[in-house]
Amino acid sequence: MFEDFLSPISSEFQVPYRYTVQFTKGIFHLTNPSLRNFLISEQKEGAIKKALVVLDEGLTLHYPNLMTEIKTYFQGFDSVVQLTGNIMVIPGGEECKNNPILWESLVEAVDTYGIDRHSYIVAIGGGAILDLVGYVAAVSHRGIRLIRIPTTVLSQNDSGVGVKNSINHQGKKNFLGTFAPPVAVFNDLQFLESLDDRDWRSGMAEAIKVSLIKDKDFFHWIESNGYFLQSRNLEKMSYLIHRCAELHIDHIANGDPFEFGSSRPLDFGHWAAHKLEYLTKFSLRHGEAVAIGMALDTVYSYQKDFLPKEDKDRILSLLKKLGFVIYHPELSANAKENLYLGLQEFREHLGGRLTITLLAGIGEPREIHEIDLKILAQSVDFLETYV
Amino acid sequence: MFEDFLSPISSEFQVPYRYTVQFTKGIFHLTNPSLRNFLISEQKEGAIKKALVVLDEGLTLHYPNLMTEIKTYFQGFDSVVQLTGNIMVIPGGEECKNNPILWESLVEAVDTYGIDRHSYIVAIGGGAILDLVGYVAAVSHRGIRLIRIPTTVLSQNDSGVGVKNSINHQGKKNFLGTFAPPVAVFNDLQFLESLDDRDWRSGMAEAIKVSLIKDKDFFHWIESNGYFLQSRNLEKMSYLIHRCAELHIDHIANGDPFEFGSSRPLDFGHWAAHKLEYLTKFSLRHGEAVAIGMALDTVYSYQKDFLPKEDKDRILSLLKKLGFVIYHPELSANAKENLYLGLQEFREHLGGRLTITLLAGIGEPREIHEIDLKILAQSVDFLETYV
Ligand SMILES: NC(=O)c1ccc[n+]([C@@H]2O[C@H](COP(=O)([O-])OP(=O)(O)OC[C@H]3O[C@@H](n4cnc5c(N)ncnc54)[C@H](O)[C@@H]3O)[C@@H](O)[C@H]2O)c1
Ligand SMILES: NC(=O)c1ccc[n+]([C@@H]2O[C@H](COP(=O)([O-])OP(=O)(O)OC[C@H]3O[C@@H](n4cnc5c(N)ncnc54)[C@H](O)[C@@H]3O)[C@@H](O)[C@H]2O)c1
Ligand SMILES: [Zn+2]
Ligand SMILES: [Zn+2]
Repeated sequence: MFEDFLSPISSEFQVPYRYTVQFTKGIFHLTNPSLRNFLISEQKEGAIKKALVVLDEGLTLHYPNLMTEIKTYFQGFDSVVQLTGNIMVIPGGEECKNNPILWESLVEAVDTYGIDRHSYIVAIGGGAILDLVGYVAAVSHRGIRLIRIPTTVLSQNDSGVGVKNSINHQGKKNFLGTFAPPVAVFNDLQFLESLDDRDWRSGMAEAIKVSLIKDKDFFHWIESNGYFLQSRNLEKMSYLIHRCAELHIDHIANGDPFEFGSSRPLDFGHWAAHKLEYLTKFSLRHGEAVAIGMALDTVYSYQKDFLPKEDKDRILSLLKKLGFVIYHPELSANAKENLYLGLQEFREHLGGRLTITLLAGIGEPREIHEIDLKILAQSVDFLETYV
Repeated sequence: MFEDFLSPISSEFQVPYRYTVQFTKGIFHLTNPSLRNFLISEQKEGAIKKALVVLDEGLTLHYPNLMTEIKTYFQGFDSVVQLTGNIMVIPGGEECKNNPILWESLVEAVDTYGIDRHSYIVAIGGGAILDLVGYVAAVSHRGIRLIRIPTTVLSQNDSGVGVKNSINHQGKKNFLGTFAPPVAVFNDLQFLESLDDRDWRSGMAEAIKVSLIKDKDFFHWIESNGYFLQSRNLEKMSYLIHRCAELHIDHIANGDPFEFGSSRPLDFGHWAAHKLEYLTKFSLRHGEAVAIGMALDTVYSYQKDFLPKEDKDRILSLLKKLGFVIYHPELSANAKENLYLGLQEFREHLGGRLTITLLAGIGEPREIHEIDLKILAQSVDFLETYV
């Protein structure tokens, strides 16, 4: 047969990515060089680049001058990068990921303003806005350069420094999305001052998580600084964010950045968290749900004899010390069915075999592939009565 | 300031990709091992994988038994991979990329059938179906494993062996899409027999293109085999496809796979082609439009004194020999405005500076950053009267 002569053709290559997370305060003050220097460093002969700025509405309420500041800031180097049309203000929070109209209007703006692949989309806000805008940037023209300016604890230490984006689709959390690294991230710590207490606290859940699976010393640091953290000390919080972001980025860069495999240690506590977010119709913040999910998997790890009692107690008491609630009635209502479905959905989203990260100690993750639903229900009971 | 202690965090990594393009005939014959072997080679302990098959309706018309064959074929190893629900049959051709309902229904199927990231979506059909299904696979759960079985000349030698997908959005060609390599490609040459003459011919435009910018010898081969190629000799066509695919893959793997830069030599002839496809409301096939676009850029290269007259004549006469029409009235109607807009749109899609590939000889590309619209209009006139 002649096709025998048509040998298989192999395609093999690596795609390189590189970006930096910078820490600053007052990023749009005229004297702040961070963003300007980055944009100037990227300048190429030929065309002036455009920037479409998308802003979390939650910020405009606390910083009424922010839009003017941003415009003035960009005017300072408009021979390099020009703001397009109006700054787009989008309601923040999970709702923006549920609303296909917002997605559509952003894609529309990319078209209307002629944002090309070498222009920028600058997303400023919480993790939800960053996820939505990141997804728009990733699929428009097959990828526009994305700059993230995260403004919550969670987005500065976790979601905003990583490589994922997503929106919800037909009631399924993060059903649509891509892996698409940003070109730069700027963590402006000043924005954290206006967070309400829930959002201030919620983001710390990811720091506890990453300490539990990667860095015992960091866990100790959080324990020792619990008082300052829960009483809104910005300096301590800045350190927490920096270390958490560092561990997170390290994990991405030295692991499996686009998650081709099915192991996901960074998702400790997340399978139950995702389910709880839905069951509570997102009345729980992501971090609040993660705190409960970690508490559950901590107790389960203990009840399966993986984790010493002392470690379990330290984890639960740190969560409580920081102000987290570690139980939710939705865990018990139809517990068996809901938790079973939660595991199912988690497996489906990751694909392949069920892989859940538990703990063998603080800083010692342990992967398992089966969950004993009976013991899990006992763990729920344990949390319900834990004080 | 305390944030001085918070040093920037750099994230730097490479994402590896690998896939093979295999050539075969009768891929769903029970005795054909290609696809089965691939799927078995990927088997992992734990779960049976699922496969959602999406089929180009154009094929079912010519191969009424195809759906049954596919089902029977998969039954042979259903302890490894299981077909989900029904095979989805989708109308082929550009219209499927214009229709958001089809996109939606495919995403729906991923959800309904519980296709996870380690399951497969198998897309069988022309370049349009592959682009649509590839986009669905890329964004569902942030990326499901995609197997492509291209069934047209164009998709076997170009679109189906590369790393891009897309759909059209609000009248803009390929406005939404991603870079997302498949996990495997199977070129089944037997499918080519049912192509109508236009689709048989049209795909050869990409082979001429790649020969013009990369491989003089291949151009000679096409010239010498012009008679066989236009009289539908499958053996010659198979060679043409193989060599074209090889050059294409080589370009991707050794260049800039996800097109972060703004040079795109593989887009020779394409800026005018994209505009023409729209102006003619897709009554032109992609390859037919590319043939006209190449003719235009060939003549322009000649009129700018980059390209010797002899080369220009050989190129135009090869195109004609293979049956391509190298002029379209839409080139002249509002020529100046439309061509100007076409260049604009091309620049916008790629981003950055305008970069157009012209020819300095056969196999010798030359990049330019400006087009002289007056000379371009003369090139159009030249083509109009060329016989
Ligand atoms: N992409 C990822 O890798 C990843 C990882 C984890 C979580 N996430 C996603 O992140 C989202 C949660 O993000 P979040 O916790 O940042 O909350 P959020 O984005 O939902 O924001 C919470 C509220 O805070 C407001 N806000 C934002 N910044 C503010 C500020 N500086 N001051 C006052 N108010 C402010 C917002 O308007 C919103 O009302 C979820 O959708 C989750 O799925 C994504
Ligand atoms: N992703 C990329 O890198 C890339 C590159 C080039 C082109 N493209 C896209 O590819 C598309 C064009 O693809 P195409 O030229 O393969 O045409 P097509 O997919 O539009 O198919 C043309 C027609 O042929 C039918 N058909 C398919 N296989 C057949 C067969 N074996 N026998 C009989 N009929 C068959 C289809 O049903 C359709 O009606 C365009 O949308 C173009 O933008 C993509
Ligand atoms: Zn999280
Ligand atoms: Zn093409």
